[in-house]
Amino acid sequence: MFKAAVLGLGNIGRNVIQSLEVVPDGECIGVVRRPASVGKTPYDLRGVPDFPSFDDLLDHAGKPDVVILGLPSRRVPGAAAELLSRGFCTVDSFDIHDRIVEVVGSLEEEASKGHAVAVTAAGWDPGTDSIQRTLFQAMVPVGTTFTNFGRGRSMGHSVAVRAMEGVADATAITIPLGGGRHSRHVYVVLKEGYSIEQVEKTIKADPYFASDPLTVTEVKDSDALSMVADASHGVLMERIGASGGACNQQIRFDMRIDNPALTAQILVASARAAVHLHEMEQYGCYTLIDIPPIMLLPGERMELLGHLV
Amino acid sequence: MFKAAVLGLGNIGRNVIQSLEVVPDGECIGVVRRPASVGKTPYDLRGVPDFPSFDDLLDHAGKPDVVILGLPSRRVPGAAAELLSRGFCTVDSFDIHDRIVEVVGSLEEEASKGHAVAVTAAGWDPGTDSIQRTLFQAMVPVGTTFTNFGRGRSMGHSVAVRAMEGVADATAITIPLGGGRHSRHVYVVLKEGYSIEQVEKTIKADPYFASDPLTVTEVKDSDALSMVADASHGVLMERIGASGGACNQQIRFDMRIDNPALTAQILVASARAAVHLHEMEQYGCYTLIDIPPIMLLPGERMELLGHLV
Repeated sequence: MFKAAVLGLGNIGRNVIQSLEVVPDGECIGVVRRPASVGKTPYDLRGVPDFPSFDDLLDHAGKPDVVILGLPSRRVPGAAAELLSRGFCTVDSFDIHDRIVEVVGSLEEEASKGHAVAVTAAGWDPGTDSIQRTLFQAMVPVGTTFTNFGRGRSMGHSVAVRAMEGVADATAITIPLGGGRHSRHVYVVLKEGYSIEQVEKTIKADPYFASDPLTVTEVKDSDALSMVADASHGVLMERIGASGGACNQQIRFDMRIDNPALTAQILVASARAAVHLHEMEQYGCYTLIDIPPIMLLPGERMELLGHLV
Repeated sequence: MFKAAVLGLGNIGRNVIQSLEVVPDGECIGVVRRPASVGKTPYDLRGVPDFPSFDDLLDHAGKPDVVILGLPSRRVPGAAAELLSRGFCTVDSFDIHDRIVEVVGSLEEEASKGHAVAVTAAGWDPGTDSIQRTLFQAMVPVGTTFTNFGRGRSMGHSVAVRAMEGVADATAITIPLGGGRHSRHVYVVLKEGYSIEQVEKTIKADPYFASDPLTVTEVKDSDALSMVADASHGVLMERIGASGGACNQQIRFDMRIDNPALTAQILVASARAAVHLHEMEQYGCYTLIDIPPIMLLPGERMELLGHLV
């Protein structure tokens, strides 16, 4: 049994606790959450003890084999680096695509120093979709892969709009248009004194939205906003191209899922791999395409080969 | 540039030559084929020299970094073991599912002795489909994966019928019925003195066919048989189940392809991985789920991470 600690009790943290209940080889020894929240919402914890800091967790729950980060992406690199330098293995679902190479580089350094293992960008995109893109390219080297997201709520786009002037709250829905292009439907709760036309202009001017068709709709309050979209999401990945001399090779990967539940499950599978890599003294920072897929599963190799190959 | 030698100039061998033309980092230094065929059908060779034996290839074309086996599955374990014991890395698309664990065990031993690397069962099923089954199970641990083959020609079922009494030639088509079940359409050229009813009974009695709906059709000769099915094939893999506490997680992988062209391309990607593992002195026998996916691609790690993750 590998022992996992969880940082954060948001969407991801809550789902990681549930995933660790189901897997046969891991357990959650504790959760670190905001000090003001410790002891509250015990149903979210499902019997797992909560602590106001990681050092409190160490004192009372003991040393985990791996720490699963359920933090906002922008806080991941700093938190992971600190844990790695102290010799703790980390797993995260950092999802800012254009910073991944930089983050791998810096976590690699900390993990090597700390004799620890980091698995980063271990959600579904980046994450398992990255494995698909890699396989698609290996199988059909000449061609283009389209990654079509949605229909579903984009956390990244929602967060971006919430930070804009005049916006009290917002949710952004991604709708696939085919060919890896998307339209955005943004639902906004306005701050007093702002008009929806003003906010729509601000959103349209943002580079994160500028190239996509956009619809902006005003919603009266956060309660109404919460009725606009649940956590359903999905992706359709497509590649058509040539293997050797053969054209018209067609590959598709299609998925409709509860977004944080899948992310959490992939984090738990990655935590298993991190523990295994640590036992093998293969210190460093990994993304999912750097890890043999068999390491994501519990069980003995030869038995897994018999079932899966 | 890795140097590959190819054993056999059948469907797989011919397509491997074409795949090696397209990839930026590998080349084919020679093909071993039946002595009686050497020098014939130069268009199949596309400028690659052919030899009557592997030792002739070594003498004239030099030492390959990896040998790609384009042999019938039943001849693969023996041929791979001999090459591995002599220190040559091998890659094969051995596809007899229920013997894979045994073959991995024996090639592991020879590869370790010979300080070589074997990648076995490296086609699309077993092969890249095995990676999908592994990912599906890691993402959605509670559920069932259905692997639906076809519509397409099953090499395994065709070979099985050809070996039966009264059969001069045969082709077996696999048609998916859903839920991982299939019907078989078998087209048979009879030997003189046999009736199609007799042969149909023999096919139905074979455990390879016994559990599936079967249609047997007589065809007058091998020329007519060759018009029944080309090399198109495909698979639909489906899993519905739970990630942690979330039900109704739906994943699908769907592919329509030229069968030998895809198999050959995966063999070439696996050859690249074998060479890399050999350079790292990670001797032994691997299946595709034992290999980090990034190793299947040419190029530098950080650049690939930037594009794919």
